[in-house]
Amino acid sequence: MTPGRPVPPPLAKPITVEESGAAPVGGALAAAYGATSPESGLVPLTVARRAPKDDDVEIAIEFCGLCHSDVHATRAEWRVPHYPLVPGHEIVGRVTRVGSAVADFAPGDRVGVGCLVDSCRECESCLEGLEQYCERGNVGTYGAKDPRNGDAVTQGGYSTLVVVDRRFVLRIPEALDPAAAAPLLCAGITTYSPLRYFEVEEGDSVGVVGLGGLGHMAVKIAKAMGAEVTVFTTSESKFEAARELGADRVVLSKDPEAMEAADRSIDVIIDTVAAPHDLNPYFRTLRLEGALFQLGLPAEDMPPVSPGQLIRRRLAYAGSLIGGIAETQEMLDFCAEHGVASDIEIVEATGLNQAYDRMVAGDVKYRFVLDTSTLQEPSERADA
Amino acid sequence: MTPGRPVPPPLAKPITVEESGAAPVGGALAAAYGATSPESGLVPLTVARRAPKDDDVEIAIEFCGLCHSDVHATRAEWRVPHYPLVPGHEIVGRVTRVGSAVADFAPGDRVGVGCLVDSCRECESCLEGLEQYCERGNVGTYGAKDPRNGDAVTQGGYSTLVVVDRRFVLRIPEALDPAAAAPLLCAGITTYSPLRYFEVEEGDSVGVVGLGGLGHMAVKIAKAMGAEVTVFTTSESKFEAARELGADRVVLSKDPEAMEAADRSIDVIIDTVAAPHDLNPYFRTLRLEGALFQLGLPAEDMPPVSPGQLIRRRLAYAGSLIGGIAETQEMLDFCAEHGVASDIEIVEATGLNQAYDRMVAGDVKYRFVLDTSTLQEPSERADA
Repeated sequence: MTPGRPVPPPLAKPITVEESGAAPVGGALAAAYGATSPESGLVPLTVARRAPKDDDVEIAIEFCGLCHSDVHATRAEWRVPHYPLVPGHEIVGRVTRVGSAVADFAPGDRVGVGCLVDSCRECESCLEGLEQYCERGNVGTYGAKDPRNGDAVTQGGYSTLVVVDRRFVLRIPEALDPAAAAPLLCAGITTYSPLRYFEVEEGDSVGVVGLGGLGHMAVKIAKAMGAEVTVFTTSESKFEAARELGADRVVLSKDPEAMEAADRSIDVIIDTVAAPHDLNPYFRTLRLEGALFQLGLPAEDMPPVSPGQLIRRRLAYAGSLIGGIAETQEMLDFCAEHGVASDIEIVEATGLNQAYDRMVAGDVKYRFVLDTSTLQEPSERADA
Repeated sequence: MTPGRPVPPPLAKPITVEESGAAPVGGALAAAYGATSPESGLVPLTVARRAPKDDDVEIAIEFCGLCHSDVHATRAEWRVPHYPLVPGHEIVGRVTRVGSAVADFAPGDRVGVGCLVDSCRECESCLEGLEQYCERGNVGTYGAKDPRNGDAVTQGGYSTLVVVDRRFVLRIPEALDPAAAAPLLCAGITTYSPLRYFEVEEGDSVGVVGLGGLGHMAVKIAKAMGAEVTVFTTSESKFEAARELGADRVVLSKDPEAMEAADRSIDVIIDTVAAPHDLNPYFRTLRLEGALFQLGLPAEDMPPVSPGQLIRRRLAYAGSLIGGIAETQEMLDFCAEHGVASDIEIVEATGLNQAYDRMVAGDVKYRFVLDTSTLQEPSERADA
């Protein structure tokens, strides 16, 4: 609770009669942007948000980061989603209402929601605070069936309002700029978690492959952890940008001599590239017992990994998925303490489609964030 | 030192004049079997062994295991070796002579030599007892340049005699049958090391892919560590053999339903298959934070690994190379304590080529071991 903070003005229409769209009595209709088909692009939509249940927190969304997976999901590049689909899982806003059992959040609090809004809460993973690895499948912030809410399909943060169980709501430290904090909820935690899992500490050597939304966060977080950071890039044009972000060394990955010079110099690599690429040259840069974490999920096959590379230095080629809720809070607090946030470009609702095209072209430094105050008024009936 | 044990009779001719082959004064000519070209098969050869230097141990070889890499190496399937090439790195015998600085071995002691006969002894890996990962390259027991011995090419254990620095000589516990202990020096330590690295303990679930020389050792060692062991095999004909070795469960890997039933049931997989094969179905059987160690090195590309498999359970696809010297001694002592040894078939020198063919066909339960008493007399001059 943050006493004295003004409650934001209503950004959504209250629902008072059951026949209003799909929303229950006491819920609200909220403005949103989303896709209605793989080719629709993003269009104005209205989503129904449920009335806060006892454990729920209703949040007036201020900002929502644009993640590359939003593009994949809305365009059905991984699988065909349920349409209409409102993407967005880097949500920052302020609490508007809370359910009767919510003691740790109060109206006015600045809060965040990341990639998850629920999980089974009972399996070994959930009990260990690893909700992202829920054995029964976590509930994603958008496009997922929500078993505790009648299997309704979740709708994400390109919207003015969202209702989320308190267990999946994060506290955004006041030291963080709310727009620049939004990408921490996915890009931040996705890079923070493997670095922590590998127990990166002062003096370790961290490599970062790819300098996009995730990559630029990996550089900043690894630096804040005290690591020496090497950025691998295919383009000399990114050298300066990498250094500006704090990289100690930049290696042109397509230059075999430069890669050879980086031989056995790195403890852990955070690979953020979501297109197929040959990992074998990177394994060569790892020290004994090093690891390469791949975080991006290409739609096509990766080139084969040479087991000999792994064998001769006892290396690991590993994966990592976002982070658990407690770890996400830890990451937010860490970022606030170390002054780490995303480099962002604010985008208006009407600019979302152009922003997607620029993301696909790699033309953003480094994350677009939607200002939800630019969304239209919700219509009288919910589209989803 | 084992007082009272008889020193074995001389199995090699002493060299007393410098012009005798390539061996120095005080060295010996030893009978051997090896390859003279990729197509030669194994033929009788004579190798020169150096006179023991201050730190050297001269060993009369009793038994030498036949490893699949011996086939690859002699047939130039990985790279073209220096010929003639005497393979063999699963060596068990008795000490015949020791250098003046050797205090920990004495004539008559039963000892072993594995895959390594030297390393730089100075790099971080060596100082940590991880000589197999020597940063300057370890010195293999055969086919490797030996910098501390004038860059002579090492010759392996299909021979009656070998001279090795005391730092790379293992003690074979008397509780172990010397012939059945030989394969522990490669197949044993190669499977023991990743199980220890992963910290396998009582009650863990270990999977083993492939039931050959390495695979059968992985089953026995994992069982001795207290693990539940699942063997994956492509052939129902191996079910009984797997159970005889101690497997708690056998899964037909080509049966999708059986694989589905094994979903998320295993902590660590030891994959011993040295031919290209799809790993993705095995990743599905791993629990959160599980690992698959690939130990075999196929000559062709492996099928691509799906990063999504690694990401969704924070898995690691890892490699591991034999083990360090101290760890190899630990493994030998562990095997002696737990009554673990290899299942072997003794082969005579004249049967080596047929044994190779049978190894390639997978027709051995589970390791051939050469009885070096069946080698011919050495000739008057060294071939290598």
